[in-house]
Amino acid sequence: MIIVIKKGLKPENIQEVLLKIKDLGASPHIVEGREQMTVSVLGKTEKISLKDFEVFPEIESVMRVSKPFKLASLAAKPNGSTFNIKGVMFGPGHFNIMAGPCSVESEDQTLRIAHAVKKAGATIIRGGAFKPRSSPYSFQGMGLEGLKILQKASRETGLPIISEAMDLEGLRMMMDYVDIIQIGARNMQNFALLKELGKIDKPILLKRGMSATVEEWLMSAEYILAGGNDKVILCERGIRTFDTQFSRNTLDLNVVPILKGLTHLPVVVDPSHGTGFRHLVAPMSLAGMASGADSLIIEVHDKPEEALSDGPQALLPSDFEALMKKLVQMGEIMGRKVQTEILDKKAS
Amino acid sequence: MIIVIKKGLKPENIQEVLLKIKDLGASPHIVEGREQMTVSVLGKTEKISLKDFEVFPEIESVMRVSKPFKLASLAAKPNGSTFNIKGVMFGPGHFNIMAGPCSVESEDQTLRIAHAVKKAGATIIRGGAFKPRSSPYSFQGMGLEGLKILQKASRETGLPIISEAMDLEGLRMMMDYVDIIQIGARNMQNFALLKELGKIDKPILLKRGMSATVEEWLMSAEYILAGGNDKVILCERGIRTFDTQFSRNTLDLNVVPILKGLTHLPVVVDPSHGTGFRHLVAPMSLAGMASGADSLIIEVHDKPEEALSDGPQALLPSDFEALMKKLVQMGEIMGRKVQTEILDKKAS
Amino acid sequence: MIIVIKKGLKPENIQEVLLKIKDLGASPHIVEGREQMTVSVLGKTEKISLKDFEVFPEIESVMRVSKPFKLASLAAKPNGSTFNIKGVMFGPGHFNIMAGPCSVESEDQTLRIAHAVKKAGATIIRGGAFKPRSSPYSFQGMGLEGLKILQKASRETGLPIISEAMDLEGLRMMMDYVDIIQIGARNMQNFALLKELGKIDKPILLKRGMSATVEEWLMSAEYILAGGNDKVILCERGIRTFDTQFSRNTLDLNVVPILKGLTHLPVVVDPSHGTGFRHLVAPMSLAGMASGADSLIIEVHDKPEEALSDGPQALLPSDFEALMKKLVQMGEIMGRKVQTEILDKKAS
Amino acid sequence: MIIVIKKGLKPENIQEVLLKIKDLGASPHIVEGREQMTVSVLGKTEKISLKDFEVFPEIESVMRVSKPFKLASLAAKPNGSTFNIKGVMFGPGHFNIMAGPCSVESEDQTLRIAHAVKKAGATIIRGGAFKPRSSPYSFQGMGLEGLKILQKASRETGLPIISEAMDLEGLRMMMDYVDIIQIGARNMQNFALLKELGKIDKPILLKRGMSATVEEWLMSAEYILAGGNDKVILCERGIRTFDTQFSRNTLDLNVVPILKGLTHLPVVVDPSHGTGFRHLVAPMSLAGMASGADSLIIEVHDKPEEALSDGPQALLPSDFEALMKKLVQMGEIMGRKVQTEILDKKAS
Repeated sequence: MIIVIKKGLKPENIQEVLLKIKDLGASPHIVEGREQMTVSVLGKTEKISLKDFEVFPEIESVMRVSKPFKLASLAAKPNGSTFNIKGVMFGPGHFNIMAGPCSVESEDQTLRIAHAVKKAGATIIRGGAFKPRSSPYSFQGMGLEGLKILQKASRETGLPIISEAMDLEGLRMMMDYVDIIQIGARNMQNFALLKELGKIDKPILLKRGMSATVEEWLMSAEYILAGGNDKVILCERGIRTFDTQFSRNTLDLNVVPILKGLTHLPVVVDPSHGTGFRHLVAPMSLAGMASGADSLIIEVHDKPEEALSDGPQALLPSDFEALMKKLVQMGEIMGRKVQTEILDKKAS
Repeated sequence: MIIVIKKGLKPENIQEVLLKIKDLGASPHIVEGREQMTVSVLGKTEKISLKDFEVFPEIESVMRVSKPFKLASLAAKPNGSTFNIKGVMFGPGHFNIMAGPCSVESEDQTLRIAHAVKKAGATIIRGGAFKPRSSPYSFQGMGLEGLKILQKASRETGLPIISEAMDLEGLRMMMDYVDIIQIGARNMQNFALLKELGKIDKPILLKRGMSATVEEWLMSAEYILAGGNDKVILCERGIRTFDTQFSRNTLDLNVVPILKGLTHLPVVVDPSHGTGFRHLVAPMSLAGMASGADSLIIEVHDKPEEALSDGPQALLPSDFEALMKKLVQMGEIMGRKVQTEILDKKAS
Repeated sequence: MIIVIKKGLKPENIQEVLLKIKDLGASPHIVEGREQMTVSVLGKTEKISLKDFEVFPEIESVMRVSKPFKLASLAAKPNGSTFNIKGVMFGPGHFNIMAGPCSVESEDQTLRIAHAVKKAGATIIRGGAFKPRSSPYSFQGMGLEGLKILQKASRETGLPIISEAMDLEGLRMMMDYVDIIQIGARNMQNFALLKELGKIDKPILLKRGMSATVEEWLMSAEYILAGGNDKVILCERGIRTFDTQFSRNTLDLNVVPILKGLTHLPVVVDPSHGTGFRHLVAPMSLAGMASGADSLIIEVHDKPEEALSDGPQALLPSDFEALMKKLVQMGEIMGRKVQTEILDKKAS
Repeated sequence: MIIVIKKGLKPENIQEVLLKIKDLGASPHIVEGREQMTVSVLGKTEKISLKDFEVFPEIESVMRVSKPFKLASLAAKPNGSTFNIKGVMFGPGHFNIMAGPCSVESEDQTLRIAHAVKKAGATIIRGGAFKPRSSPYSFQGMGLEGLKILQKASRETGLPIISEAMDLEGLRMMMDYVDIIQIGARNMQNFALLKELGKIDKPILLKRGMSATVEEWLMSAEYILAGGNDKVILCERGIRTFDTQFSRNTLDLNVVPILKGLTHLPVVVDPSHGTGFRHLVAPMSLAGMASGADSLIIEVHDKPEEALSDGPQALLPSDFEALMKKLVQMGEIMGRKVQTEILDKKAS
């Protein structure tokens, strides 16, 4: 249930509404937008009637949300969420590109690639310090040392950092080093981790599980939002289907316009994992933007044949540069300002 | 096995090569490109050695094709196929849009929509006279009467017609009425039909089966090519996956750049069946072009609520017009000339 | 809509009911069971009310069938169908095994294997004369010659024959040679073929399409039944999923009890195509029976390394014999009489 | 790489072999079977040659394992693993049934059902105290209180307990209360959890991920085994496919014989989650045993309409009793002793 509050009122003016919600056995959750304030009513709402709120003059409208996700629903923020993450904009009208190596392998490698992607126009650096590997015998990432290298790359380039957390221990370690926490496909329904992410003050990039439905994905976002963290970004990274001869996964771009009709959260496309092969990355990056995505996350490596993980899907810096140029052009048609530099100050 | 013949030679100059191929128990198939002539060696090629052809001075190079498709392979025509179908161009650098109703329902409906899509810039009219329906009790199409209506629409607008054949009887009936024969997903491996399509002189649009691999799809194209019909166009129309709550199929755009690396045949994207919902059609049309497709096939209906089939996925004429404008703009970035009128004479 | 007629009445006694149905714009289809007669009302039934039939004393009950399949529904024959096909029983309480080579390769091979499977207890011989092959360059079957060999095998062993028809031409050819027409997975939605199968007087074994839903499968059976042929047998042969490393398909045994709750048609399991590997065939044959199937269809070859198709999944005659013994034992627990010899006369 | 040691030798006699392995940069892992001792060589084995071990007379044979799983491979224990878990036997020749409610909902409910399933012949009680729920607003389980109820049920009936751990905190809590730790489908690739499970001294039942390949599943088992915990039991619980109209998941019984050819670990089938509907549970339980499984895990509830989770798939106690009788009968044919009582002392 979503309650839309009249313009101009402050939370303290709607105390009675909030008390009423609690009386009815549910819990209120306030979302302040630029143009309106909404109250999402969570918990046991089955027995609450729209009539229960008709008496309050502060209330503009009350809607029953039939979808099981509420805080994540578009109804909660009909104009979409806009985030400014350390000078990088996510949201309607904006577009940005995150790029970097799959894994942090050494300081030299990471700094080299960080400077290359910055030069080409990426505004966020990606790089894994903890790597989810199906084999216990594969390279598992550099851990804390990797985080320190990422921090150095961020300081040298001025770009914020995104990196993956696989568990609570890693998450705690990352709080001082990274700017966006990435949650991988295999952890999309790691509910203990999702609950913890709801309590922290960092943006979360939540990748779709390999065979997760759109509803399950949004419900996982709902776990984080319900915990109190409202900075959730969704990332499509390819689903598992029957044909893996020529691509590692099937990038499901249908979900981009689907999500735009269901949720206010920004949507990122990962054409690197979504295809698994270098020659498919540029066309699917362009297709990702054309489908309506807010951002791309792309693997770039200057020596892919030496990469410790996912070398075959990494773009060369020169190819990445050429792709960036096309994305900037296409952004104009799509009504998206492609950001190629960090903003000086907070924007919205 | 693909044999590349030196420039300038004519088929009669390479008689000896052809005889040698037949002696070895295989059959030669000549493909004349603008810049080179290639001979595909079909049949039992396992025991043929590259050395068998070294003595011929006419031969420039001999390649073993490890893929099971040969005539369809990119190696057979490295620059891609270009078709001029009644003044509409398919191939590198070109782009065209086919549009129209799902089913031919009446003369009035078909003519009305045909004029609307022509006005917006479509250059081929689509419309089903024979409808594959999972229920024997559903509307099965107007049949011959529908074909006559399509012919009238073609005469009034000047646009060529594409329509689906479901069996040999329907195929024979269509020969006098339609310009491109569409083969639906359910018939992609109807081998008897494929063999017949190899014998006719009409372009074929071959839709991907609902769970067909890329290789199976190309092998089905190979059936038609091996029969002697070299005008085959591939059409991605969405695959079947685990999530059908918000879209009918999963449009698999990964296959567009994959096919571009494997085959010379043009690739069409069908965002209507690939999504199943009107609000997803425009973004996925743009994404289809951005992924590298050569054409789109889009369902348009001016009274979708009255449509006898697939109403929910049909675009309104006004939405189609707006989409066409964006496609023309995007074509410039993609290096594609979006065709919005029929060419006067044969081009290439 | 299903109308159940009182016991003992004959079709001529219910003329008025049939006329009423036609008056209402629908068409009646009589199904005579041993214990009751039912009338399925097909066509436009949306506007027909249960009340329309309340006045007729001949009618015992009227049910609205919400499922889109009617003739195939369990409601149409609540006790299940029982077929006697040339002395082999399909239906509740019965169990039989069809076995033989994937393809008819020579008279010698076919006769040898036919005698071996008969000796082990199979009561129907399988063997392909027309082979659906994804490549136009693969062995396509012996055709008419193969049918003649099958006929000879049938005469020598006394066992009826099942073989696959791929198109109308092949179907006509087979009418004089085979006893059960098999329709393969790729043709499950070849509607032209299904309509023709409705007109012939031969039992049809309808394999499930590679990614067909249960409803689509039953609707394809409905095409045949609605055409007037009531001898349809369903065959699960494995679906396409994401993991093909260790099995060719995923045998979906869930559908066996699902079908038993939805339809009266017999259900066969094909553990050979359902797995693709010899060592999986025996366990999955037992599992097929345990899940409630009415029959199995198993590939057997005495020289699988020489087989022209599907050698890796063929059982050796000795393994088949051992499996037959276990099936006979398990039949007792499952309440199934496993038939190992052709019955002398018509049974029911 | 697997090294088979001659019979009769003790670990201390093969010190030199172990040192050699460490010298080569890999690590040895000893597995003592009843009939032989094997040493699995883990880590970087690419550069190790079979010749490196030829000089040791203690060694009987050395095999390169091409599969990426080693400790889990059948080669490591060719006769299969046999576990005695508090008097319940898992392994070749044995068969047991775990049963109980989906969730622990109250002491009364749990004790009632525990006694019912014991009476029918189950030897392990299942019941969830921590529930993985896709919605943050759904019942999440009784937690510690639920564990205490399970302990009471175990004391009253004498049956060991299996329950699911979702995270490290829950795992620690469970160590004093449950006998087998269940890891759910969503956590199959929660690598942090898997690593922790390798360090504890409790048997683990590892459910297959919803779209996990067999190889990924065995690699997850390998994580636990490599950590030092050799009591891993695999559980097939249905995969996600395209058809969910009549069953919640597709129970993939092909994997039972596949696993029997790849690994020594016991295999359990979960027909409750694998189907999602009560009327499918009994046939698929029988099919599970027939396919070669070592055990079943079945949801039973005496008031399924009141269940807080998964009511529609729970068997009634009376149906469970009838099923148990059939399983005992079928066990005789399958060469399995179906255990219906806890053994007094340690057996093997």
